[in-house]
Amino acid sequence: MIERLAVVGMGLIGGSLARALRDADYCREIIAAGRREAPLRRARETGLIDGFELDPAAAVAGADMVVLAVPLGATREQLAAIAPALEAHATVTDVGSAKRSVVADAEAVLGEAQARFVPGHPVAGTERSGLEASFAELFDGRRTILTPTRATDPAAIARVRRMWEAAGAEVVEMSPEHHDELLGATSHLPHMLAYALVDSLARGEQGREAFAFAAGGFRDFTRIASSDPVMWRDICLANADRLVAELEGFSADLETIREALRSGDGATLEDIFERAKQARDRWVEP
Amino acid sequence: MIERLAVVGMGLIGGSLARALRDADYCREIIAAGRREAPLRRARETGLIDGFELDPAAAVAGADMVVLAVPLGATREQLAAIAPALEAHATVTDVGSAKRSVVADAEAVLGEAQARFVPGHPVAGTERSGLEASFAELFDGRRTILTPTRATDPAAIARVRRMWEAAGAEVVEMSPEHHDELLGATSHLPHMLAYALVDSLARGEQGREAFAFAAGGFRDFTRIASSDPVMWRDICLANADRLVAELEGFSADLETIREALRSGDGATLEDIFERAKQARDRWVEP
Repeated sequence: MIERLAVVGMGLIGGSLARALRDADYCREIIAAGRREAPLRRARETGLIDGFELDPAAAVAGADMVVLAVPLGATREQLAAIAPALEAHATVTDVGSAKRSVVADAEAVLGEAQARFVPGHPVAGTERSGLEASFAELFDGRRTILTPTRATDPAAIARVRRMWEAAGAEVVEMSPEHHDELLGATSHLPHMLAYALVDSLARGEQGREAFAFAAGGFRDFTRIASSDPVMWRDICLANADRLVAELEGFSADLETIREALRSGDGATLEDIFERAKQARDRWVEP
Repeated sequence: MIERLAVVGMGLIGGSLARALRDADYCREIIAAGRREAPLRRARETGLIDGFELDPAAAVAGADMVVLAVPLGATREQLAAIAPALEAHATVTDVGSAKRSVVADAEAVLGEAQARFVPGHPVAGTERSGLEASFAELFDGRRTILTPTRATDPAAIARVRRMWEAAGAEVVEMSPEHHDELLGATSHLPHMLAYALVDSLARGEQGREAFAFAAGGFRDFTRIASSDPVMWRDICLANADRLVAELEGFSADLETIREALRSGDGATLEDIFERAKQARDRWVEP
């Protein structure tokens, strides 16, 4: 149970977490901080939050749980802004999609409060952004990854874990390094490929015609290319070294396919396609 | 109106076309040819077809419309098998996802019947295969591309056009060359990327863990990697030269992203992501 939850950044993730915890009756009070007043005012009118502040430091004062839900690139600045206002007993967590950079940000600006900072990443989302797109079920049955360091207070980890479980998520722990390696492969790389493909088509000779003839497979394949560009710029920069390695590996795999196409090597193509189909079919219906 | 339709190959496409035309009451009689007897027998029992043959030549005898719906790699062999049995007034079409190879196949084996052969491609499908996965609405509002040559009889084109319109599709015409270029970019390339990504993850160090942490975006992105490997091997080989060119262009685009990541160039990343998002959002909701 949380006495007073402060959510800094009421976008898709912050808004959905507030909804889920409100539905679960897990917080006595929810205070939000954001840059735009109108959506926060509406959120207060509908009872989603009990109050709001445009100044994040004002929002975290008195809070026993603080969730930072801003784009990764704003993490350090926002942590620095709230640090002086944090209560001595407050637990702090974030929702960023890369974790080594967040750990570095916390070390740089949180001072002794970093022991109560638990880096977190709910592996959930849609291609839409903003409070309007948020919904209470976003985390149902999805995983939230916590990446504590040796400096993190176990009691703070336990509190953040219980909060995410109350929101419907399954919580796992791993190191920030392992998180960035894993998500680099399963999330960051696919986003790069989808963005690159759509941009390449849009710039290509066929232009509009290409989109006119794109079928359902293309729609699904590129859904993630409708994600927020600033958010993804920040994620890519925060995990750049891993992503460079992933892109290098993937380009080598494409070169294998290209070589098979050049030499008419159907057996190699079929092997790759068959392995991929089996792996995905097992994953979708184990 | 078709007197007697012969569908050679009752998979997802052949089966869905039979269902759509049956629902539209557009054929007096539907005869199917396939390799496996059990599903054909069930299709006859349910009234989807009026009869079936395991020998394609027997199926096309007496038919005024013949639809070849087999994997691309079987096109030439199947056209050769039915050629001697075709009625003098029969119109013939196919549903292959690459068209230059089909035109070459028809030229090689159809003789004078090639004037009544209309190469076609319904741009529709799902990642599932087989008659069990077929449904009458598959072509509703989707495009079917016809790629006639100078040798094609205009009356045959008109008949195939009306058939696809009766099945719910919008019909457009273009050259086989243009078709292969366009679909290489919008369909064949995305399939390669999805297959390569899933295979790469499945082979990677993270293995099972990677799939365990893959989120909804990954599921959508890779749906097409569950497509039939043999069908896609054939499509890739049939359109290999275009696909090699597409892969080369795409690898260069990935190199641009890699370079931006290496140099911490957030502006370039954001530009690419923003252009892609705008192009896709315009496409999804024009």
